[in-house]
Amino acid sequence: MDHGEFMDAAVAEAVQGQREGGIPIGSVVVHNGKICGRGHNQRVQKGSAILHGEMDALENAGRQSAAFYRDCVLYTTLSPCAMCTGAILFYKIPHVVIGENRTLLGGEELLKAHGVRVEVLDDQRCLELMKKFAAEKPELWKEDIAE
Amino acid sequence: MDHGEFMDAAVAEAVQGQREGGIPIGSVVVHNGKICGRGHNQRVQKGSAILHGEMDALENAGRQSAAFYRDCVLYTTLSPCAMCTGAILFYKIPHVVIGENRTLLGGEELLKAHGVRVEVLDDQRCLELMKKFAAEKPELWKEDIAE
Repeated sequence: MDHGEFMDAAVAEAVQGQREGGIPIGSVVVHNGKICGRGHNQRVQKGSAILHGEMDALENAGRQSAAFYRDCVLYTTLSPCAMCTGAILFYKIPHVVIGENRTLLGGEELLKAHGVRVEVLDDQRCLELMKKFAAEKPELWKEDIAE
Repeated sequence: MDHGEFMDAAVAEAVQGQREGGIPIGSVVVHNGKICGRGHNQRVQKGSAILHGEMDALENAGRQSAAFYRDCVLYTTLSPCAMCTGAILFYKIPHVVIGENRTLLGGEELLKAHGVRVEVLDDQRCLELMKKFAAEKPELWKEDIAE
């Protein structure tokens, strides 16, 4: 599988979030090689406590059968937090590709313990987006990770 | 703390979901003794993959600080799934009160392992709602628990 196209789409979502004044984290859900849902963090834009990038992408993928999710790969620009990790485990998504995990190391060990394939690309675009954001809006970043 | 009033409110949300033709699971978030968010499963009503009762209640509680959630109790009519468990852990909600866990046993052990106080009331109203629902709409129930 060529990660490039899909991580590009997740980064584009993160950049869109940045443009909207939000938290620059994006995600896409890929089903059998085709993007079926894309999204980005909506804390600022929708006043949402639950629409992290991954959750927004899952929501935008719509109602699907259990079998559908078993054929999905989730791409996210940042390591998934405990909530998004729980969503991945709940839907038994077998493969997660992560842009970077230096800004935040999420639930990767729990994912692996449940047999999820976890890849970290160490994508510099993802890192730069978060570095700039965390420096400019530290209080918003703390709110978003409940710290 | 008197659980009665708050579990009554969660049950009322579940009943509202049932009336709407949805999945009868409800939840309320209580902050310092006052309900700050209430909700019910929105899979049918909003075509949502992520708005379980607990997630809907958290979303309706709005954007809050990390400190806010430390003073919350989450009430839910059914044992929380892996996704909702992840959300509770993410926000470090210290106390969860569950109507019943016979229909589905969710992430209670993971919650306890992280120091969350978990109480199960074995509430007959919650059990009856789910028993009726699962008998009448088994395919919808399977979809909602990704099985």
